Amino acid sequence: MRLYHSFFPFLGAVSAASFHERTDNGVPQYKDASLSPIERANDLLGRMNWEEKVGQMGGVRRLAEAKLAFNRSNYEAFVETQNGILGYGSMYNAPLDLLPIANQVRMEQVNSTRLGIPWITVTDSVNSIYLVNGTLFPATLSMGCTFNIPLYKQVVQVLRDENRALGTYWVLSPELDLAKEPRGGRVGEMYGEDAYLVGSFGSQYVKTMEEKNEQGYIQVATTIKHFVYAQNQGGVNLASINAGINWIMNDLALPFWKVIKEANPLSLMASYSSVDQIPMSANQYMLQDILRDTLGFKGLIMSDAFGISNMFTAQKTATSAQDAAVQALEAGLALELSPGKPGYFPTLMSLENDTRIVELVDKAVHQILMIKLATGVFEQPLASEETIKKTLRAESHLEVNRNVSREAIVLLQNDGVLPLPSNSSQKVAVLGPFASLINAGSYAPEDPIDSATGSGLIESLQEALGADKVKYVQGCDIVLTNNTSGIDEAVSAAEAAGLAVLMLGSLSTSADPYMQSKRTDGEFYSHADLGFPGLQQQLLDSVLDTGVPTVVILSGGQAFALSNSTLRSNAILHSFLAGEYTADSLVEILYGRVNPSGKLPVSLPQASGATTAYYDFLPSDSVLAGPSGNGSTAWQWPQLQRESPFTFGYGLSYTTFAVSAPTLTTTNTTVQISTSVTNTGNITGKEVVQVYFRPKYTRTIEFPVRRLTAFAKYELQPGETKDITFSVNKEELGYWVYTKYHVYPGEYEFWVGTSSRKQDLKNATITL
Amino acid sequence: MRLYHSFFPFLGAVSAASFHERTDNGVPQYKDASLSPIERANDLLGRMNWEEKVGQMGGVRRLAEAKLAFNRSNYEAFVETQNGILGYGSMYNAPLDLLPIANQVRMEQVNSTRLGIPWITVTDSVNSIYLVNGTLFPATLSMGCTFNIPLYKQVVQVLRDENRALGTYWVLSPELDLAKEPRGGRVGEMYGEDAYLVGSFGSQYVKTMEEKNEQGYIQVATTIKHFVYAQNQGGVNLASINAGINWIMNDLALPFWKVIKEANPLSLMASYSSVDQIPMSANQYMLQDILRDTLGFKGLIMSDAFGISNMFTAQKTATSAQDAAVQALEAGLALELSPGKPGYFPTLMSLENDTRIVELVDKAVHQILMIKLATGVFEQPLASEETIKKTLRAESHLEVNRNVSREAIVLLQNDGVLPLPSNSSQKVAVLGPFASLINAGSYAPEDPIDSATGSGLIESLQEALGADKVKYVQGCDIVLTNNTSGIDEAVSAAEAAGLAVLMLGSLSTSADPYMQSKRTDGEFYSHADLGFPGLQQQLLDSVLDTGVPTVVILSGGQAFALSNSTLRSNAILHSFLAGEYTADSLVEILYGRVNPSGKLPVSLPQASGATTAYYDFLPSDSVLAGPSGNGSTAWQWPQLQRESPFTFGYGLSYTTFAVSAPTLTTTNTTVQISTSVTNTGNITGKEVVQVYFRPKYTRTIEFPVRRLTAFAKYELQPGETKDITFSVNKEELGYWVYTKYHVYPGEYEFWVGTSSRKQDLKNATITL
Repeated sequence: MRLYHSFFPFLGAVSAASFHERTDNGVPQYKDASLSPIERANDLLGRMNWEEKVGQMGGVRRLAEAKLAFNRSNYEAFVETQNGILGYGSMYNAPLDLLPIANQVRMEQVNSTRLGIPWITVTDSVNSIYLVNGTLFPATLSMGCTFNIPLYKQVVQVLRDENRALGTYWVLSPELDLAKEPRGGRVGEMYGEDAYLVGSFGSQYVKTMEEKNEQGYIQVATTIKHFVYAQNQGGVNLASINAGINWIMNDLALPFWKVIKEANPLSLMASYSSVDQIPMSANQYMLQDILRDTLGFKGLIMSDAFGISNMFTAQKTATSAQDAAVQALEAGLALELSPGKPGYFPTLMSLENDTRIVELVDKAVHQILMIKLATGVFEQPLASEETIKKTLRAESHLEVNRNVSREAIVLLQNDGVLPLPSNSSQKVAVLGPFASLINAGSYAPEDPIDSATGSGLIESLQEALGADKVKYVQGCDIVLTNNTSGIDEAVSAAEAAGLAVLMLGSLSTSADPYMQSKRTDGEFYSHADLGFPGLQQQLLDSVLDTGVPTVVILSGGQAFALSNSTLRSNAILHSFLAGEYTADSLVEILYGRVNPSGKLPVSLPQASGATTAYYDFLPSDSVLAGPSGNGSTAWQWPQLQRESPFTFGYGLSYTTFAVSAPTLTTTNTTVQISTSVTNTGNITGKEVVQVYFRPKYTRTIEFPVRRLTAFAKYELQPGETKDITFSVNKEELGYWVYTKYHVYPGEYEFWVGTSSRKQDLKNATITL
Repeated sequence: MRLYHSFFPFLGAVSAASFHERTDNGVPQYKDASLSPIERANDLLGRMNWEEKVGQMGGVRRLAEAKLAFNRSNYEAFVETQNGILGYGSMYNAPLDLLPIANQVRMEQVNSTRLGIPWITVTDSVNSIYLVNGTLFPATLSMGCTFNIPLYKQVVQVLRDENRALGTYWVLSPELDLAKEPRGGRVGEMYGEDAYLVGSFGSQYVKTMEEKNEQGYIQVATTIKHFVYAQNQGGVNLASINAGINWIMNDLALPFWKVIKEANPLSLMASYSSVDQIPMSANQYMLQDILRDTLGFKGLIMSDAFGISNMFTAQKTATSAQDAAVQALEAGLALELSPGKPGYFPTLMSLENDTRIVELVDKAVHQILMIKLATGVFEQPLASEETIKKTLRAESHLEVNRNVSREAIVLLQNDGVLPLPSNSSQKVAVLGPFASLINAGSYAPEDPIDSATGSGLIESLQEALGADKVKYVQGCDIVLTNNTSGIDEAVSAAEAAGLAVLMLGSLSTSADPYMQSKRTDGEFYSHADLGFPGLQQQLLDSVLDTGVPTVVILSGGQAFALSNSTLRSNAILHSFLAGEYTADSLVEILYGRVNPSGKLPVSLPQASGATTAYYDFLPSDSVLAGPSGNGSTAWQWPQLQRESPFTFGYGLSYTTFAVSAPTLTTTNTTVQISTSVTNTGNITGKEVVQVYFRPKYTRTIEFPVRRLTAFAKYELQPGETKDITFSVNKEELGYWVYTKYHVYPGEYEFWVGTSSRKQDLKNATITL
């Protein structure tokens, strides 16, 4: 038989045992946990027949539909040809209800198949488990708002432990796509627009999920995704991406490269889109030459849910289902993430006599077996009711969740109205359709019927102030209707209370069909208009016209374009998708019990057509825009600068901070950036000190105006100063020219400060 | 000396004389018109010293500033180091005024320099000469509206003859960029969004301009531009372009390829933008491997005006002016189009001892000399007052202009209000800031003081109807002001007249500073909002609210997003930039004396954020946009389909046409598409029959949903049917996979019809 050593060399140390010469008498090698995964995988692959091999390359995406609709004949029809991975859903089932079904089919697979190769359970796990009753964390974009990697480590530990309690050993996260296209629906699933920020969070996710346990098993395998995605034409969800190789290497691929180098993830998901007109699922150049050979990825490559079928049905670059499957296999895809109907890889069954296909299938199956062996699913006990009860929503988990939610909210504007006086008799008119609900985000299991996880702003405010001080008027629906009657009522309530808190936004929910019909954000929900859907702007304008002091809270996994009218608000907070404690955290912030410390992970465009808006544009994207060459405006109608005033890294506090100009020194391998941050205000607060850089001149490639290269968050008492030294590896200061990475000698400029805005930064220059 | 044969082999036939062995006794070889350009260039190059060579690589962009401000000391300072090409401007001077200065410096160059190498006069020539008093044609985008190539040939003949009368032998046109980014300011300078349409017009331009005269000289050298440009980030004028090589080859580069193959243009201008992060002015891969080796371009490559300096000042990929100059030279640039200040190529003077630079400079200068020799500037007489008077605005020129203007206006919507009854007593309220002016477009010399060229809509209507029937109210300014008082007045005028004609739009003028301050369109004038600038929408809405029958006329070199409110109008015409006879043609169309026949050369986006909007998107850009995979909408807020209702090729007539389903046959080398078109209405009209195709499935590359491959315009009497057979070369049906062009066997679908909209097309399939 063929032995495979090319992939996963880093798994060699799972077992401390030395190589065993062992016969098949007694226990077969692949069942011997004292052997290494490679030895076991090689042995098992040699025993498998063709159908068993192809079967491993697919699976069942969802075990049951909502409300426990487990259809056994359906399941069996799938499993005949797709029996590698088992999804653990639907996400609207409760774990304890689904557990008997899950354990039943898991046992069947081990006990009733020829070789007893167990399922590995694979699910989405974005900000919760993929079932209800888990801890519902802020969505990925809200995690980005915290700029707090140590806190995120705690979050991922919780997500890991809650997944393992369910018997889930492989997750379809982290998403490393750059949120640079605000019209795209999936922005809420991403950490932000900056490659370093995204890479830092993603790397922490993989390290924590894949941390080995005492037995040497990887706790939960991860999937970095989507290689590459998110800059789709017009922001349309599945649309193609116009991307040149230099832009890919110097931007889209950077988070992948960072996570591969730092955390060696077990798997990667290819994008379902065409990139430079070639479907990524069949793109040998990108998946082999770039991803494996240039970026050094050693794990398994899987398809996205529609990735392989798209080529036949949408992109029309495959003439049949089998043609699509063969193209995907040839490009290096080892696993088909089934969209819930029979997959395309089973069409490979008829190609048993094609030696080229057989060799590629062997390679693919070896990778799948390696992940099963590395995570120990051959040895893991079945999930138990006891562990589930003990683990999900443990008190310590909820405490972590409260902490992260508090740091995930961004204060964008404040004329002094915030914090509100906490002991006054001031009444509050709570207005807007988002004040009554939880905006949970894509792939977040928020059961709209069972409100166990979290409350809306009304409830949290009522609890804090007493019901008599809070008057709620919805004002208008989430989406466009003809009913404007609520607006007058809202205006009256604002005038009567003398203070208005409006919560407006864009709904991203995977909840029931009724709520889905009001959805305008999330996967498949792209927006051509970056304002508030429906009549919400009209509601806001009417309230602002009264002159009543008004606090606006934005909700949704997206960057809104804030109109001049909106900017009249006395204060603006963006709560993005801050999880089950969004409303509680908002109340704490409104009344000054928590000092806001979130920062924008995405720049807010100034108009729906003023995109892209990201901070790390190329110098020529801005200068020389006018005939006088002075770069005064990038757009003339309306007149707008290229740099958005609400840009990446920006966010206010109730105190103020001063960051000193940096001093730069070097070691052989690093640049040391020394600065200090002082709390110059009157209350304790947290500040994110951010370090940006660029080479003064570059060769061949145009480099962004500046780029984040380090950040850290500090809590400071009033008057307190902290001296900080960031150490940046010189290797991090380079750029790709086509597929070669260069770090050139020359002058480098570094900036430190509290946001990416020019006026918030101080700089120094060093020659390297 | 080195002999150059690698470029311009097609110029070998300029002289019929066989090779002459001739000494330098008597007339030097380079002055002997009986020798071929190559022989003469080789001889001349051998005689030139280093300063003379480098001097040829630049020149003087504008001879004088407006109002004849010729500054001799300035001129002499330039000419010392930049003496290859002479601009003939500024465009606000009159030819007869400028002529003595131009002829004086031309004579000086021939008579007072060591070798007497003449200037070649180079100017922009978009829709007129680059001085006033020429025929002011519709702008390039309006030419695209005509879909009429034979008519365009007549236009280019006029442009050629008017340029030659001034002694201009080299023009900076045609622009082959695809108008696919509606936010870009230069859309009006382009023929349209479709590669085949653009290539067809561009090819005709080059063929006609470069047609040889009786002496065998190319009449006017052309410059295809800008390789590649127009899909800049955010539509911002000079911004970078995220472009992969497949997208470039299958879209942006296609018009260049077509024009190179069909017309062999003498020169090409490199884009001033970065493409895939590399400034095009230094992009050896794009300019050598792709442009020369793959696309077969044999002419001279020049920079754009800021192209070389940008690398140092904007893109920061050059560390000095000389570094930028060397990079440009190495990439293959032979000529610097100076932005009016001392150029960067003169910094090469100090590199005389660098043999690599010397060799590249020799190559560059040889190309410049070849163009001078091929156009005969060594032999041409000076321009004369007599020829200028006889040629500019000749009656035949104006007749061509009237004809093309009539076909350049597109009827977008008509509930039957048009044509207006021509003999009634109906009064007209003419409203809107564009009813009083000519929107001439970028690089169009429309002197706002001298109204010799064309009239505004008010004047044309008054002339047609009598002044008493026309009431004009401007209503609002072109750009944003606080003055809303005119709106009420406009509403009253509309109600009083019982019929409103509003002319609204976006100003693209190179006119005086006061008008420039109101400019929102044209080079450097990008728009983040695709609605009407200022209060124009409010003016329109107020008039529509009255219920008075309303005709809206759009003006500007751009695609506007038409709001639901705008679509309430009884009729909508888009006049784009239809030249000096815009208003006359509009009146002819409004009153039915001309039947409109223009077609949209660009798709109108449905909202400012609903871009891109072009018709030839990739299949996956549209389908599977919703969770049900049914492609119902691409965007969810607001809900919009990917295909715009006002898409490429669309335009109404006062009659109706039926196009029959195609029948397909093949020859060895072609596909024959046979169809018939019938005028099914009651009046004579012109229809553009359009042929689209796509391979049913493609390999590797995703191919657009459909793509234009032939079109022709027919005039038909009521009831008349014309049988048509289009012949498409099979070689045209392929696509590029990276840098290889493929035409694969398989099924192909062809559509014929009256626009690119699905409902306007009939199809058939053939296996090739």
